[in-house]
Amino acid sequence: MLNLQNILSVFLIFIPVSIAGHFLHWSDPVVFITSALAIIPLAAWMGTATEEIAVVMGPALGGLLNATFGNATELIIALVALNAGLIDVVKASLTGSIIGNLLLVMGFSMLLGGLKYKEQTFQPIVARVNASSMNLAVIAMLLPTAVDYTSTGISTDAIQKLSIAVSIVLIGVYGLTLLFSMKTHTYLYDIDADMDLEELADSNLDGDTEHGEVNLPLWITVLLGCTLLVAVESEFLVSTLEVATEQLGLTAFFTGVILVPIVGNAAEHATAVTVAMKDKMDLSVSVALGSSLQIALFVAPVLVLAGYIMGQPMNLNFNPFELVAVGVSVLIANSISSDGRSNWLEGSLLLAAYLVLGFAFYFHPVIDGIG
Amino acid sequence: MLNLQNILSVFLIFIPVSIAGHFLHWSDPVVFITSALAIIPLAAWMGTATEEIAVVMGPALGGLLNATFGNATELIIALVALNAGLIDVVKASLTGSIIGNLLLVMGFSMLLGGLKYKEQTFQPIVARVNASSMNLAVIAMLLPTAVDYTSTGISTDAIQKLSIAVSIVLIGVYGLTLLFSMKTHTYLYDIDADMDLEELADSNLDGDTEHGEVNLPLWITVLLGCTLLVAVESEFLVSTLEVATEQLGLTAFFTGVILVPIVGNAAEHATAVTVAMKDKMDLSVSVALGSSLQIALFVAPVLVLAGYIMGQPMNLNFNPFELVAVGVSVLIANSISSDGRSNWLEGSLLLAAYLVLGFAFYFHPVIDGIG
Amino acid sequence: MLNLQNILSVFLIFIPVSIAGHFLHWSDPVVFITSALAIIPLAAWMGTATEEIAVVMGPALGGLLNATFGNATELIIALVALNAGLIDVVKASLTGSIIGNLLLVMGFSMLLGGLKYKEQTFQPIVARVNASSMNLAVIAMLLPTAVDYTSTGISTDAIQKLSIAVSIVLIGVYGLTLLFSMKTHTYLYDIDADMDLEELADSNLDGDTEHGEVNLPLWITVLLGCTLLVAVESEFLVSTLEVATEQLGLTAFFTGVILVPIVGNAAEHATAVTVAMKDKMDLSVSVALGSSLQIALFVAPVLVLAGYIMGQPMNLNFNPFELVAVGVSVLIANSISSDGRSNWLEGSLLLAAYLVLGFAFYFHPVIDGIG
Repeated sequence: MLNLQNILSVFLIFIPVSIAGHFLHWSDPVVFITSALAIIPLAAWMGTATEEIAVVMGPALGGLLNATFGNATELIIALVALNAGLIDVVKASLTGSIIGNLLLVMGFSMLLGGLKYKEQTFQPIVARVNASSMNLAVIAMLLPTAVDYTSTGISTDAIQKLSIAVSIVLIGVYGLTLLFSMKTHTYLYDIDADMDLEELADSNLDGDTEHGEVNLPLWITVLLGCTLLVAVESEFLVSTLEVATEQLGLTAFFTGVILVPIVGNAAEHATAVTVAMKDKMDLSVSVALGSSLQIALFVAPVLVLAGYIMGQPMNLNFNPFELVAVGVSVLIANSISSDGRSNWLEGSLLLAAYLVLGFAFYFHPVIDGIG
Repeated sequence: MLNLQNILSVFLIFIPVSIAGHFLHWSDPVVFITSALAIIPLAAWMGTATEEIAVVMGPALGGLLNATFGNATELIIALVALNAGLIDVVKASLTGSIIGNLLLVMGFSMLLGGLKYKEQTFQPIVARVNASSMNLAVIAMLLPTAVDYTSTGISTDAIQKLSIAVSIVLIGVYGLTLLFSMKTHTYLYDIDADMDLEELADSNLDGDTEHGEVNLPLWITVLLGCTLLVAVESEFLVSTLEVATEQLGLTAFFTGVILVPIVGNAAEHATAVTVAMKDKMDLSVSVALGSSLQIALFVAPVLVLAGYIMGQPMNLNFNPFELVAVGVSVLIANSISSDGRSNWLEGSLLLAAYLVLGFAFYFHPVIDGIG
Repeated sequence: MLNLQNILSVFLIFIPVSIAGHFLHWSDPVVFITSALAIIPLAAWMGTATEEIAVVMGPALGGLLNATFGNATELIIALVALNAGLIDVVKASLTGSIIGNLLLVMGFSMLLGGLKYKEQTFQPIVARVNASSMNLAVIAMLLPTAVDYTSTGISTDAIQKLSIAVSIVLIGVYGLTLLFSMKTHTYLYDIDADMDLEELADSNLDGDTEHGEVNLPLWITVLLGCTLLVAVESEFLVSTLEVATEQLGLTAFFTGVILVPIVGNAAEHATAVTVAMKDKMDLSVSVALGSSLQIALFVAPVLVLAGYIMGQPMNLNFNPFELVAVGVSVLIANSISSDGRSNWLEGSLLLAAYLVLGFAFYFHPVIDGIG
């Protein structure tokens, strides 16, 4: 059966190509592009492996696994970039991941799903609980930026301390949302949740697997192998990023906000669109909203703490326009998802919002010493 | 039968008066005020003619006609002002039209309707679909401002290119919303839509017309004649605007944001209030929300493209306070219209919001070289 | 019966202690802290007395009394501080009261109520009407700040005039909301309203009172006596505030935003939490939302007018970060309260938002000449 995941797997060819490019000293743009393309199928297989293992481990542990490894690709790329000192690219990719999941992933899902079905419905309760957490997460994540922007000058040290304090609160909130969804209020999420989890695993594969016989050692090996390969490819990507983007006529800011997140989120993208076209909008919306929530509540604060440990000056002080862009994306995504219905026009509106934000990032003069 | 439209027709007397004033070289404030008053009934008759012709042409073509000519008055005034190089007045009038429709028109409708009926209801779905499009439109329209405000300096050329790119996306989105409402999802809007269209035509007239016998040539003549006269009066209005507002002790900014939109939207105003007092809130809310949506998705981008063709430096870089005012208006209008119910207090809240914004514009020191 | 109110009454001991401290010239931090602790039970008894008298006076007059004296404590502290020229502390305490009611009070209510009951419900209509008024109030209150922030310089005189104009509109809107809730649309609020009012009175007391025999002279005496004592303690608090906060290592800004409102709102806090734990979420949410609405629509504009009369330069030009903080709080509170349901996670999210805002205020460098 030919599906999106299978098509993505063709991209596995770029793994040897990018490795060859690296050792044979091909030009930076070539290594940059091939390593980016190589990460896409690896991310998809990491996702599949995580979900297969999650099915075996049962809802509680499996959910936790999903929650932790769900954005593993983005986390690995960001950690490698952080280690290389590309702080602003890391920040831009966080912004870009949130925007990309809310507008691009959800937009394509609603558009392509909506072209097939006149009107699609999903549980507004899930959208709403997520929306409240999302509002908090985004606001908290962007508060240090607001403090800096509304004062005549705050010391780097104070921004650093504030970012760490906020990060600890966010990780705490993330823990509470897991406790809520997996322990105390599972029933809110339970509607078809088990079925959906298998559905999700199926949608990532060729559909033939029977879950009575999940091959656990195989999937653990796949997960570890892909993680390792993603790390290697991220090294290639990051080491060539600055020269390559310059030669391609782009700013590192634009690359961080638009290109890196598309690579990192390709798997979610494929999954969300595939299930939307099967009229499983609950799952599709969950993937898009859940992924952006994880970035804000888990990936971003972990990177702040990691930066502190690594001695890199990572904090939550973003470019003010990133604040505007994220705020605007959350607003539009909320207003479109809050009624539990979607159609092709709503998908188009999300994509149009992504497009105009993309233009704005393209024309935004770089001011924070990026690029 | 005496109704609002008939009362407005009394203002037709100002057409000869303003023409006399122009050729007899009366003082600028007199020509300014008389030409403004002359435009009001002309706009009303243009609206009536458009709707009469629309009824004959059937839902599809008629809807398209309504969608294109709905804000013809504002568009003509703006094009004349643009041609005269009053860029900031044009921008201010766009902001003011959006604010005026959302707060002043909807506010008076809900207040006066609510004084007659304890609680009025309307389709929340229409409000909601409009709200999502509106959020996108407003955000897109104001993104260039945000880019400029959050950077230390973006070149005029980049703002121009960004504005054109955003305008093309907005016009595309406008086309999609027409396709959605007139072709693929008509049923969402169909509830009493035909009846409402006739109702709308009736409300603009004296109520005696029988639609079996619409006099098409007559109405086309009326439409063309009024369009021509609006253009002439706009010339008088624009050519006296700067001197007149100064002599009246106002800034051109205040005139652009408050006075020009009141003149341009008087017809919508009359219609929305009239039908609200007949407890047709669906129609009333549609007129107010639809008109502001048209400004943001159609009139504003058309003016940017027209400015480019005319060689006038029109773009979407507004005064930051205009961004605040529009954002705030959309927020309040959304929060009040989203539940599909209205009462006199909600109308009063909208009017109070308009009032405080008016104060703020009055006291706002002019910074963008306006006036 | 031991309840929160009784526990608070233990704090009455701080009245003589703080008086002694004042006359015996104890150190400023000691007088500051003891007078703060003394105000808490006084505010609670003022609230109780107001509600007891309101029960006797009937819904209309009683409601008006509640509406006027509901935030009497905050008003008294603010007037004393205003008289002492601590303008920025007054402004900060207004911001802090709104944030504190929306996030801290509602957060603790939803968290503690939610730990006892899996899901709690309340009338979303009340939350919604309040939300619209709240949006308007907050926006109007913060417009002068936006005007100042988006212009290169507005004269103090213009800000003053704008603030007075906005204040008059706000007080007018406050009058309209009272007219709406007490006269024209009482039925919207009537569901259990009478019962709730007695419930409220009971919850503040030991539960033994029988309302057939309310001792009116007693309660009037209590109200007047407490008002007097609050005024005295406010004098102690304000006169020691600057030195004490400095010695405690805090900025006056932080004290104004966080500490003063906690003292001023302790009574609402106790009431809202107590009734939430009895699963009376309608009442709990009303107290929290109503109190913040009163601050924005009544207390803030009264202080502007009072400042004008006193010759103190009080206006509505806040620190821009206060604008961000209030906007963010309203957004989160709206998104959590709009569906008429609550659980412990939503309470935690509100508290987390308060916590991160607290961090941000703590690290915010003081720029407006505060402290």
